[in-house]
Amino acid sequence: MLQSEFFTKTIKQAPKDEESINAQLLIRAGFIYKEMAGVYTILPFGLKVLRKIENIIRDAMDKIGGQEIYPATLQNKALWEKTNRWDDRVVDNWFKTKLKNGQEIGIGTTHEEPFTKLMTKYVSSYDDLPVYLYEICPMFRNEKRAKSGILRTREYYWKALYSFSKNEQEHNKFYEKMKGVYKNIFKQVGLRDKIYLTFASGGSFSKYSHEFQTLCNRGEDIIYLDKEKKIAINKEIYIDEAIKKLGLKKENLVEEKAIEVGNIFSLGYKFSEPLGLKYKDKDGEERFIYMGSYGIGITRLMGAIVEIYNDKDGIIWPENIAPFMIHLIPVEKTKSVQRVADKLYQDLQKQNLEVLYDDRTTKMIGEKFVDCDLIGIPWRVVVSKKTLKQDRVELKRRNKKQPRLLEIKKILPFLYERKRRK
Amino acid sequence: MLQSEFFTKTIKQAPKDEESINAQLLIRAGFIYKEMAGVYTILPFGLKVLRKIENIIRDAMDKIGGQEIYPATLQNKALWEKTNRWDDRVVDNWFKTKLKNGQEIGIGTTHEEPFTKLMTKYVSSYDDLPVYLYEICPMFRNEKRAKSGILRTREYYWKALYSFSKNEQEHNKFYEKMKGVYKNIFKQVGLRDKIYLTFASGGSFSKYSHEFQTLCNRGEDIIYLDKEKKIAINKEIYIDEAIKKLGLKKENLVEEKAIEVGNIFSLGYKFSEPLGLKYKDKDGEERFIYMGSYGIGITRLMGAIVEIYNDKDGIIWPENIAPFMIHLIPVEKTKSVQRVADKLYQDLQKQNLEVLYDDRTTKMIGEKFVDCDLIGIPWRVVVSKKTLKQDRVELKRRNKKQPRLLEIKKILPFLYERKRRK
Repeated sequence: MLQSEFFTKTIKQAPKDEESINAQLLIRAGFIYKEMAGVYTILPFGLKVLRKIENIIRDAMDKIGGQEIYPATLQNKALWEKTNRWDDRVVDNWFKTKLKNGQEIGIGTTHEEPFTKLMTKYVSSYDDLPVYLYEICPMFRNEKRAKSGILRTREYYWKALYSFSKNEQEHNKFYEKMKGVYKNIFKQVGLRDKIYLTFASGGSFSKYSHEFQTLCNRGEDIIYLDKEKKIAINKEIYIDEAIKKLGLKKENLVEEKAIEVGNIFSLGYKFSEPLGLKYKDKDGEERFIYMGSYGIGITRLMGAIVEIYNDKDGIIWPENIAPFMIHLIPVEKTKSVQRVADKLYQDLQKQNLEVLYDDRTTKMIGEKFVDCDLIGIPWRVVVSKKTLKQDRVELKRRNKKQPRLLEIKKILPFLYERKRRK
Repeated sequence: MLQSEFFTKTIKQAPKDEESINAQLLIRAGFIYKEMAGVYTILPFGLKVLRKIENIIRDAMDKIGGQEIYPATLQNKALWEKTNRWDDRVVDNWFKTKLKNGQEIGIGTTHEEPFTKLMTKYVSSYDDLPVYLYEICPMFRNEKRAKSGILRTREYYWKALYSFSKNEQEHNKFYEKMKGVYKNIFKQVGLRDKIYLTFASGGSFSKYSHEFQTLCNRGEDIIYLDKEKKIAINKEIYIDEAIKKLGLKKENLVEEKAIEVGNIFSLGYKFSEPLGLKYKDKDGEERFIYMGSYGIGITRLMGAIVEIYNDKDGIIWPENIAPFMIHLIPVEKTKSVQRVADKLYQDLQKQNLEVLYDDRTTKMIGEKFVDCDLIGIPWRVVVSKKTLKQDRVELKRRNKKQPRLLEIKKILPFLYERKRRK
């Protein structure tokens, strides 16, 4: 796509109240726009990244048999009272509002209750189970203090899957499978070696839940990490009993700050009992359904990736979720440079390689390079008079210092092969 | 996809309080689920339809140079006060809520203000313009009475595009172009001859706005229609002056009930002035930006299509937006029937033809046919012992009474060709 056609521009200074690297870089590079504290609009480059992360997650959910629905945001007070989660003293981050007739309603902050209720309408027999339902949608939390850019916001974009199983055994099998699915999702979005399965409190539901944590100074969580085993314990359950139970040794555990980018949770009968979600087993016996929940904060994940992959000049996007694969920049406005750059642009597009072509005529080449580093597209291709003399163009990875020269005709096969192998 | 894998089932009776055909059929067929009055969750079949409509619209927006963003739902009171649209006496369908610190915020009911504000950060010169920004997202309205199923809800899914032009002339050109774009969108979703460009009030902004109305008894609008010219006037401006101005004759106009599925609006300087959205023209002169808005209620459009295309047995989806193209039903459980049906299922999928395979073993064939009509997939393919004797299967269009027999080997090329030509 042509860079001149995007309305966004890079910005020299991020808003003063944005201390986090993710918000600073994403705002400056034109990926997000701050509406107010903890509330952001996703701009075109940002939406491209978001959709890529979203689609990686969607594919993974579909593959394990997930069925996607699009949930309502407005929540029925009566439903939440049944599980005692309407009261602000129980759930402290509700946004609430009122219908014209004065009736109170909620703005969804999680969706266990409506998903459970929905299932009561459709599940009655053992052969209706298991069911894996998921949603990818905006979500709301009345945070006392929104902070850390898009890591903790009042409005965000998430994926949640809820599992409905016949019994604990069937549930456990799926739960274990999801650990692998999550690991693979985080690998695909670029966090291959950077995610630690972390034992955390299971709250009132179960002994443990599992979090997927990535190390980061901006993170709000403290974890104790066994770097060799790649397992961690969240501070909230860092006690001798838990350490021992997990077969870890205190002396091998290092305290680290981390961001939770996903979590999986055994819910048991916590919601199926009060909401009456039952099925008839093979013997005609009525039983409650055993549930689990599996979340990923998509905008938070995007923010975490920026926190991890950046340098003093800007963002360094992992290839699978970058807004574009290639940033094509002509140095001079001479006919020969333009001709080669235009031709490359067309050829790359024909191969379905996503390329941002810096065709802006109002920018100096120095500014273009600065913007390019800030935006953080993985491959930079520069066409200049100097290298054209040798029939070459310059190719540089965003995360490498040195560019290299490549024959013009080799650029396309090189990048095509690169994409194919991903 | 296998029908047995969907958690949804058809339902014999819709909720008693649902009077509209769209809600009755969509709920019974498992496309939507009612959370409370005016609030629905979109189920898997429904989401397939929604995404198809959404993508038709998105493609059209991208083609005319639209740039998609994903907006925030939570709204800043201070911004809306600048245009005097915060007060409930001015805009009467706000949902409002509060941050923990007591600060009031709004749940977006339209997005002129945040889009205009956003543009002040990015537009400064004439060569930044025009810009066409759009969003596809949930939207909220505190309706006094939600009614008519998904035609008038408290929470819905819409597309809105806002145009930012240098002057009225540039705006008018785009506005006219959008009329054609809208016409084409409605044609693609299956309303080819059923949409009437309708002159409506321009409110405080301009003489007229334009609505896209489709005739329907369930509609809330009254329009006066010239059937030959395919032009209508909304009752709100049905006065001699308007009729004359449009070159219509009272005696040719017929009163009809209709549903508004889209509208386009010249906003002029209504938002750019109070929010200070200006640009410098070629002479360095500061000028306000001329705006327009272009909306389509996506869930409403889905509902309108169901209101129009149905019979006593169920929905009749237009091919372009049907959840699947083909409903494949084996009659008997004999090996030969299963083998042919399985093979057809695989072959159709290989050609990327979307097929729902009724593999449910718990349903009688009569129930399967009833479900099939209710769900409303355009092509029904029935495999039975009887027709297999002649090496044939039965093919029936949802909107035709009579099936016809086709040689097994001809089914695939017939349907493939059908899809290709769409």
